[in-house]
Amino acid sequence: MVGMGGAAGCVFCEITEGKRSAHVVMDAPDALAFLDTRPLFKGHTLLIPRMHLETLTDLPADSLGAFFEHAQRLAAAMESVLGAAGSFVAMNNRISQSVPHLHVHVVPRNRKDGLRGFFWPRQKYDSDAEAAEYAARLSGAAAGRE
Amino acid sequence: MVGMGGAAGCVFCEITEGKRSAHVVMDAPDALAFLDTRPLFKGHTLLIPRMHLETLTDLPADSLGAFFEHAQRLAAAMESVLGAAGSFVAMNNRISQSVPHLHVHVVPRNRKDGLRGFFWPRQKYDSDAEAAEYAARLSGAAAGRE
Repeated sequence: MVGMGGAAGCVFCEITEGKRSAHVVMDAPDALAFLDTRPLFKGHTLLIPRMHLETLTDLPADSLGAFFEHAQRLAAAMESVLGAAGSFVAMNNRISQSVPHLHVHVVPRNRKDGLRGFFWPRQKYDSDAEAAEYAARLSGAAAGRE
Repeated sequence: MVGMGGAAGCVFCEITEGKRSAHVVMDAPDALAFLDTRPLFKGHTLLIPRMHLETLTDLPADSLGAFFEHAQRLAAAMESVLGAAGSFVAMNNRISQSVPHLHVHVVPRNRKDGLRGFFWPRQKYDSDAEAAEYAARLSGAAAGRE
């Protein structure tokens, strides 16, 4: 979707259009990856579709494979190029999403690097029955029956 | 890959094989999704490939599209079923990865829910030249030239 024109005021569209500079890591017909300017760790990369799509759910089904193959390559590069012990691959949809243009964070990780993964306080289901009820509700939508 | 036998001692393979119970959200030929027993928020789901694969980079290219279509559906369900304002979709590769069987966390998110996204302390590149050097190193691997 190169050259289709980005969404007005979207800083990531400005990058794909060359109106805003970025340290580009990967330049593909469908996607672009560049360094986060405020990295969790140096090498922290953002992968975006060139098309202005807001969240993961907006990505067309036939583009998912190619898009996440880029994410795979970037995750591998964190280890092969930067010598990281692992990686963190994540996207915030709407909440905590600083720019409303889908972006996958690919972050190099190492032991004792100070990040705690998802070790925020965890919750508990009140009962097994409550958990079963959540699973049943979600399963309808997950199967495409919503 | 149903019935191929899981990796010995892998708790997620035990779930796919029916040897360990879980609140199943989605049961597909290639993948399974179930509730995290210690959710960040109720409805927090783990999506795994049935095949025992350790990290994102191990997922065969031709399975990526179908796998992330499941993730898409689950992310949509957090909003459509649970009424969440958004979602967090993430995977830890090796570091902070509690079970060495690829799993995508799909977590419902709401404003002021107490999670801080990635707002851990950020770093800075020492110079623009240092950032350019990181981008150049990563770009070789990201283009498949590693």
